[in-house]
Amino acid sequence: MERLTVTLGERSYPITIASGLFNSADAFWPLAAGDRVMLVSNETLAPLYLEPVRAVLEQAGVKVDQIILPDGEQYKSLTSLDSVFTALLKKPHGRDTTLVALGGGVIGDLTGFAAACYQRGVRFIQVPTTLLAQVDSSVGGKTAVNHPLGKNMIGAFWQPASVIIDLDCLKTLPARELASGLAEVIKYGVILDAEFFTWLEQNLDALLAHDEAAMSWCIRRCCELKAEVVAADERESGLRALLNLGHTFGHAIEAEMGYGNWLHGEAVAAGMVMAARTAQRLGQFSEDDTRRIIALLTRAGLPVEGPVQMAPQSYLPHMLRDKKVLGGELRLVLPQAIGKSEVRAGVAHDLVLEAIADCLPA
Amino acid sequence: MERLTVTLGERSYPITIASGLFNSADAFWPLAAGDRVMLVSNETLAPLYLEPVRAVLEQAGVKVDQIILPDGEQYKSLTSLDSVFTALLKKPHGRDTTLVALGGGVIGDLTGFAAACYQRGVRFIQVPTTLLAQVDSSVGGKTAVNHPLGKNMIGAFWQPASVIIDLDCLKTLPARELASGLAEVIKYGVILDAEFFTWLEQNLDALLAHDEAAMSWCIRRCCELKAEVVAADERESGLRALLNLGHTFGHAIEAEMGYGNWLHGEAVAAGMVMAARTAQRLGQFSEDDTRRIIALLTRAGLPVEGPVQMAPQSYLPHMLRDKKVLGGELRLVLPQAIGKSEVRAGVAHDLVLEAIADCLPA
Ligand SMILES: NC(=O)c1ccc[n+]([C@@H]2O[C@H](COP(=O)([O-])OP(=O)(O)OC[C@H]3O[C@@H](n4cnc5c(N)ncnc54)[C@H](O)[C@@H]3O)[C@@H](O)[C@H]2O)c1
Ligand SMILES: NC(=O)c1ccc[n+]([C@@H]2O[C@H](COP(=O)([O-])OP(=O)(O)OC[C@H]3O[C@@H](n4cnc5c(N)ncnc54)[C@H](O)[C@@H]3O)[C@@H](O)[C@H]2O)c1
Ligand SMILES: [Zn+2]
Ligand SMILES: [Zn+2]
Repeated sequence: MERLTVTLGERSYPITIASGLFNSADAFWPLAAGDRVMLVSNETLAPLYLEPVRAVLEQAGVKVDQIILPDGEQYKSLTSLDSVFTALLKKPHGRDTTLVALGGGVIGDLTGFAAACYQRGVRFIQVPTTLLAQVDSSVGGKTAVNHPLGKNMIGAFWQPASVIIDLDCLKTLPARELASGLAEVIKYGVILDAEFFTWLEQNLDALLAHDEAAMSWCIRRCCELKAEVVAADERESGLRALLNLGHTFGHAIEAEMGYGNWLHGEAVAAGMVMAARTAQRLGQFSEDDTRRIIALLTRAGLPVEGPVQMAPQSYLPHMLRDKKVLGGELRLVLPQAIGKSEVRAGVAHDLVLEAIADCLPA
Repeated sequence: MERLTVTLGERSYPITIASGLFNSADAFWPLAAGDRVMLVSNETLAPLYLEPVRAVLEQAGVKVDQIILPDGEQYKSLTSLDSVFTALLKKPHGRDTTLVALGGGVIGDLTGFAAACYQRGVRFIQVPTTLLAQVDSSVGGKTAVNHPLGKNMIGAFWQPASVIIDLDCLKTLPARELASGLAEVIKYGVILDAEFFTWLEQNLDALLAHDEAAMSWCIRRCCELKAEVVAADERESGLRALLNLGHTFGHAIEAEMGYGNWLHGEAVAAGMVMAARTAQRLGQFSEDDTRRIIALLTRAGLPVEGPVQMAPQSYLPHMLRDKKVLGGELRLVLPQAIGKSEVRAGVAHDLVLEAIADCLPA
């Protein structure tokens, strides 16, 4: 079992990583006998994992209610949020309730935001079941729902009391979703940790084969890196922006192709290559390093080119609508070497268009 | 012009009180040329005050958009919240926007919560136009919307950047709404400040006649008292609960009579008398002091008895559903003297029923 702490003063919390956690009430710290819980999950995950979690909590004397939402990014909405509130108020749950998010990033983001708002804030626990949620969305306290006019536009910074990562979950995760999570894993190497990037080059096959020791260490390292960044910049005013490597390009792909057709990690993978090419054209990144990134993403089963339908010009309007754009100026996260990156403002649009063109299918 | 500060570390902010403020861009600190604003108001207030505010801001170089909601507590809802987000995203407003709440507590609570959630938190300014909002809801950072299953159940603690109180507004406020605000004013005297209570006994007629000096000092004193309490207990874990004197009884009246039939301040007025009678029956409050409270509330045009339709028994279920109830135990704010009060747990239900019966119409 791996355990680490996200250090945020009185809002600090532990991340626990192991297999078989869903059989152990101890893993669900800080829940204790007499506590009341609302489990939030979706229709795909409930049949797989809800009963064991419920059973282990009930054995420990926790009173468990549940709400099961439909599966899909389109349900990360104000409407679903309202149904969580309705479920809580029908019982009713008081300020001393704990919301438990059992699912991927969609359930985690929505449940975290529900916890931030219910009676002006109640406790919540993340039980992430996708690799993406385990290494990224469940750590750091960014919660949100979507609005028809924009993704993640309504939300809060609200830290969980605990993050519980069961490795066994990943065995039922579709391969494409696992790969999507690996895009974020590789991202950490590129922006922050050259040694980890090299470790990934050596251990990617073990990860794809669900090797427990490799997966456990990989998730631990990603959580450590994210925890460090979040501790230094909880509300995303500086350093935390580095975590968006590949995301400005990626969001353009997701938005233009329709969310869900390209998975988030897939779009980020192609976006990272575009960022690398941009950095290369600015003379701050080498062809060799770009090739290493492309090779690793390819081994993970991820795309390294933009969609054939999208001309470079079609990226820009989306990129300029990005939350990170201040006063119409494009700000990009760009690598400087493997393991080192920066936020760079004022990159010429023409150069960005050329870098995107470098990444189009032949 | 009166100015005071709510001291909350980096979240500290000024309260400005004067008449004619809507003609002065300086009052709207920290807005400055180049800023972008979304004015949120309702259909009653917009024809009265929106144009002057808009004009003064535009003259100062602020870019102003607006959204006008229907008037009423029933519009303090997730649905209205969504329409604020839609208005913001249609333009679109970025993270650097400022929401300005121009209205009573309904508009203030809703706009504050919208600001807390939009893009995970943007700046907002309170421009309270009812006495209740000026002395109570606009100060302290409690924001919320209602849910069909409970009032103020969805919200956040989110502090404004500035509170701007124009005394002229109160001249268009219906007399019943002014009286409702006076209930909260009198409450401050009872729970925290005997001298202020005496001042109110001497100056109530001046307040009812909209005497500017009296009104200005009265609002200042209430804001000071609330600011002190909030600074000591931002998230309502202790001291802040004192502000709920009369509210547990009052909420029972509001809920049983249907919200809107009894105004909030009216229910709180009757509730304060019930709290005083409870304290008397516990031997911790004098008949003379109860009579002083009753006399002052009566002069303000407020009810000092419960509704004739409500038997004492009908209060308890509502009171036990109150957010302040922990584990089924009734906790009440009770006066110990004029200017001194406490939270008391475990008061016998029978005694409470008798105290309510003391306050029923003959
Ligand atoms: N809060 C943050 O910091 C942050 C960071 C990154 C992404 N996100 C958000 O996360 C969301 C994406 O998260 P995601 O990739 O986990 O998507 P997801 O939650 O939609 O999960 C992907 C799919 O896998 C299924 N699934 C989940 N776990 C499974 C398991 N163990 N076995 C079988 N199927 C399983 C889900 O039901 C779903 O169909 C987006 O909404 C994104 O905005 C948030
Ligand atoms: N956040 C807090 O700490 C806090 C504290 C107390 C109350 N509240 C909330 O405040 C709300 C009640 O606030 P309220 O009493 O201001 O009610 P309100 O906002 O509904 O205003 C009362 C009525 O007066 C009208 N009005 C407002 N200003 C006017 C003016 N200057 N001239 C003419 N008409 C005017 C309004 O349009 C409305 O019809 C409730 O929702 C309550 O939950 C919040
Ligand atoms: Zn991502
Ligand atoms: Zn009140």
